[in-house]
Amino acid sequence: MLEQPAMKKLIPDLSGKTVLDIGCGYGNNCFDFVNSGAEKAVGIDLSEKMLALAKEKNNLPEITYIHMNMADIKNIGSRFDFVYSSLVFHYSEDFNKLADDIFSVMKKGGELLFSQEHPFVTASDNGYIYNEDGKAEAYSVSGYSESGKRTANWFVDGVEKYHRTFSDIINALCGAGFIIEHICEPTPSDDAVKIRPGLIKEFIKPTFLIIKAKKP
Amino acid sequence: MLEQPAMKKLIPDLSGKTVLDIGCGYGNNCFDFVNSGAEKAVGIDLSEKMLALAKEKNNLPEITYIHMNMADIKNIGSRFDFVYSSLVFHYSEDFNKLADDIFSVMKKGGELLFSQEHPFVTASDNGYIYNEDGKAEAYSVSGYSESGKRTANWFVDGVEKYHRTFSDIINALCGAGFIIEHICEPTPSDDAVKIRPGLIKEFIKPTFLIIKAKKP
Repeated sequence: MLEQPAMKKLIPDLSGKTVLDIGCGYGNNCFDFVNSGAEKAVGIDLSEKMLALAKEKNNLPEITYIHMNMADIKNIGSRFDFVYSSLVFHYSEDFNKLADDIFSVMKKGGELLFSQEHPFVTASDNGYIYNEDGKAEAYSVSGYSESGKRTANWFVDGVEKYHRTFSDIINALCGAGFIIEHICEPTPSDDAVKIRPGLIKEFIKPTFLIIKAKKP
Repeated sequence: MLEQPAMKKLIPDLSGKTVLDIGCGYGNNCFDFVNSGAEKAVGIDLSEKMLALAKEKNNLPEITYIHMNMADIKNIGSRFDFVYSSLVFHYSEDFNKLADDIFSVMKKGGELLFSQEHPFVTASDNGYIYNEDGKAEAYSVSGYSESGKRTANWFVDGVEKYHRTFSDIINALCGAGFIIEHICEPTPSDDAVKIRPGLIKEFIKPTFLIIKAKKP
């Protein structure tokens, strides 16, 4: 995936820092954070299966795994220097609240780094448009300006996601008090396209959106 | 146009402030700024015809009109509390430089408010996709991730514009030192759609992007 290397480049120096990973899955990021010098990492996830795997595969004394919905993080009882989340926030129903809650569990000067599906992708009735030779030429977007719930079939049927426009996302963060530091809409390197030619389609439209923001 | 009322809502209190309008056209905004209490307004434009009209129609002692390319504003010789620009920045070849230059002519605590064509619109080979009944159903985007010059036919042929992604625009502003305050991708009110039913297409994708940022 394009999203992971682009995210990694934006991770700050974690030496002696406390880190929260929202949607930690099987704990590989928490493991990396501690190995990069983090003093403490907390991983939360909605999936007990994933957390069981995390405790088995990525178990370190500096890591705590908690079964928790991101809607409840305000009650986590700690404050963090760095909050990380990969491809989870488009499942949050109320991003204004989530941004406020994250802000409230961060230390002053702390940083938030997250990725989500790009608003091109979370909008409605999307898809590549192919020419007669089967080559993708464009991407079709609909309902971009109508934020709200979308039901997608992704691995399993009926997965609920929430579409938000760029302005929804940025305004929620600014409204919570964050300062936007950097935005990335990752595109593949030449080498990546050589290995996976289908990635050329990312130049038509990006799949991921990555945002780094600071609590001043 | 949808862009003007949305911009107006984001204009700060201008009492006693100095204002720069980049691409002032025939001076209607400079006139309004002074009538709203601005102490001084400077309008720059590339078109001598427009400026002649401005001096004729919107002439006030508090307004100075200058024939100047926005690429040269660093040399304007004044500092401003508020910088405004409507639908001009997509003609700037180097937005990183423009953001730096604007920052340099602003007073501490000053605000920048600008609109430009939405990145959906400045990308390549764009257009609405219509169903059999002639109703717009989606919008086709291509080359979004490839920033750079685009040649459009808009009133006259061969107008050169510059496509930039969201991240290009936001990162240029953050890189210059600005703090993003608010983003707006305006959509029409119900009343506006009643008067101009074609505006319903703005819910498929917005036409304009408006950004408000502060020099801290």
